[in-house]
Amino acid sequence: MSTAGQVIRCKAAVAWESGKPLSIEEVEVAPPQKDEVRIKILFTSLCHTDVYFWDAKGQNPLFPRILGHEAGGIVESVGEGVTDLKPGDHVLPIFTGECKECPHCLSEESNMCDLLRINTDRVGMINDGKSRFSINGKPIYHFLGTSTFSEYTVVHVGQVAKINPHAPLDKVCVLSCGMSTGFGATVNVAKPKKGQSVAIFGLGAVGLAAAEGARVSGASRIIGIDLNPSRFEQAKKFGVTEFVNPKDYNKPVQEVIVEMTGGGVDRSVECTGSIQAMISAFECVHDGWGVAVLVGVPNKDDAFKTHPVNLLNERTLKGTFFGNYKPRSDIPAVVEKYMNKELELDKFITHTVPFSEINKAFELMLAGEGLRCVIRMDA
Amino acid sequence: MSTAGQVIRCKAAVAWESGKPLSIEEVEVAPPQKDEVRIKILFTSLCHTDVYFWDAKGQNPLFPRILGHEAGGIVESVGEGVTDLKPGDHVLPIFTGECKECPHCLSEESNMCDLLRINTDRVGMINDGKSRFSINGKPIYHFLGTSTFSEYTVVHVGQVAKINPHAPLDKVCVLSCGMSTGFGATVNVAKPKKGQSVAIFGLGAVGLAAAEGARVSGASRIIGIDLNPSRFEQAKKFGVTEFVNPKDYNKPVQEVIVEMTGGGVDRSVECTGSIQAMISAFECVHDGWGVAVLVGVPNKDDAFKTHPVNLLNERTLKGTFFGNYKPRSDIPAVVEKYMNKELELDKFITHTVPFSEINKAFELMLAGEGLRCVIRMDA
Repeated sequence: MSTAGQVIRCKAAVAWESGKPLSIEEVEVAPPQKDEVRIKILFTSLCHTDVYFWDAKGQNPLFPRILGHEAGGIVESVGEGVTDLKPGDHVLPIFTGECKECPHCLSEESNMCDLLRINTDRVGMINDGKSRFSINGKPIYHFLGTSTFSEYTVVHVGQVAKINPHAPLDKVCVLSCGMSTGFGATVNVAKPKKGQSVAIFGLGAVGLAAAEGARVSGASRIIGIDLNPSRFEQAKKFGVTEFVNPKDYNKPVQEVIVEMTGGGVDRSVECTGSIQAMISAFECVHDGWGVAVLVGVPNKDDAFKTHPVNLLNERTLKGTFFGNYKPRSDIPAVVEKYMNKELELDKFITHTVPFSEINKAFELMLAGEGLRCVIRMDA
Repeated sequence: MSTAGQVIRCKAAVAWESGKPLSIEEVEVAPPQKDEVRIKILFTSLCHTDVYFWDAKGQNPLFPRILGHEAGGIVESVGEGVTDLKPGDHVLPIFTGECKECPHCLSEESNMCDLLRINTDRVGMINDGKSRFSINGKPIYHFLGTSTFSEYTVVHVGQVAKINPHAPLDKVCVLSCGMSTGFGATVNVAKPKKGQSVAIFGLGAVGLAAAEGARVSGASRIIGIDLNPSRFEQAKKFGVTEFVNPKDYNKPVQEVIVEMTGGGVDRSVECTGSIQAMISAFECVHDGWGVAVLVGVPNKDDAFKTHPVNLLNERTLKGTFFGNYKPRSDIPAVVEKYMNKELELDKFITHTVPFSEINKAFELMLAGEGLRCVIRMDA
């Protein structure tokens, strides 16, 4: 029996207030409206951004809310005007969108869609500003337009990537955000040439995905920088060849790296969001050709500061957002890379929990354990 | 009668002390040693860098010195080991070199040769550290390895570009430094696409050469920014379509440009060396794809400062040196562009003086008059 056009009652993990464990509730999910898609989520994984907005420190608290944005699922039904998706399609919902009409979508270089660019303050759907989730008639807020900590969710069609139906959703769900962000930062933006050296600042999941990009690109040296030496052993599995802990030196880490490499690395990728790491990542690249790519999200009051001669000596500084991937146009091909074994994902998935134990995923991340915890919605 | 191997006595304009008019003297020019070339200079032009080191404010004063680095001439004789140049070749001496063997020369991306990179403190030749110029046995210092304010000079072969002998040296001499620096910054580094908008900060000779690069690239809008409105009329000849004087607004000029262009220019090129202009040039480019290129040389204590989100929103910040041209490999082709009328140079040459009146060229530049003053060595 089709559920299309009907309200669906299902389970969702609701964040009622900041920093408190999520509570599994029965919610009502309204049918998709114009340009919207209702998706049955099969797997979702936890990303730092979920924890950041759950914790909501120093932010406008927006609760009750259904968090979650890294996920894989199957289209249940589509709203008016949706022509390129149909029930049964395998999809990844993405936290940022692609309308295919704005100047950014029409540019070959940008993925920062004017209509559907990430908006952490938006709590309803674009169409009418309202939520599709409710409990006893009371709306529950959306998060990033995805809200994947629910058995069913409603997403704007511009935020849905249709992927190969043979791809295992319990693996490729991590391409919704973190792994694509790090991998794309290296392969799409830093673009190391075969044999070049790459420094990765921050060996969390995003940094290791950036390292995976360096490995795939044929980098000769992948230098990992982290303040936590316990991450070094794990990072070896991701092709990181050398490790530098800034705490081990009484000089700036960029000087250490310049000495190690006889002038600087060819490329660097910053995945921590620390302003000091951003400056080090820039100043550790070789003059003449070095490219530094910033990925990590900084604090509001941070200032990036360097001597302009570091730029004039022909270094390049760039930032990237979601690895410069356009969600609908590019992510299906990244899934194919996994299918063709050009890109490894399984090693990022260090934990799996049933949906009923979703709070364990939060505990693991807060304890700094593992990389990605995949949550099985059917269990 | 060949002068090869002989000391040549000729006229040179000697800077005896900082800020004092040059004095035309008879100097002795020693024969070229290993990897050196002796060049008969026919035309030289005055660049700000000459004036800067003549004025020598806040610097280690290095006098007596023969300044000059934008020039065209003919090879008189070559030293041991020089195989790719011979007497009679038409050449441009260049203030920075290309050894063709170091990592920078072997990189496709860099022109910052390890051996012959610009060195403003070097006063002798690399071979023996000594000067080839003397007056009554007392050495006169070299400048940038070129010292073109002399009828004859000795230059390392790595700093000599062999050009088309049909090219008029009184015109293409300006490609030795300023015009290539600005033009290359746009066409080699900013690389605007046809129809894109370009902001040029600073409408002096280098900035106008950057504008010429934008014109040649088919830019749809070329926005010139300068604190001196008298430069706007002249800039029209260089394809600049709109003008902004930061003094006319009580908000940062980057905001003015973002408003004018509905989000920012596609490319910007900074040619003043002012740190504030550098920051404005970066912050005025469009998110998603904007590229800002820094050309102007800053003060030693300046700090480039911006909010990192400006980078994360997919802007690119790069610096360039000598327009990213490799002096020997690339400059001959720039001369060909002039010969093929793809690049205009004549409009940059606003004044000409005989060698005997070289101090007039300094006066014009100090008064901010004109763009390039070419000095005829034979007059």
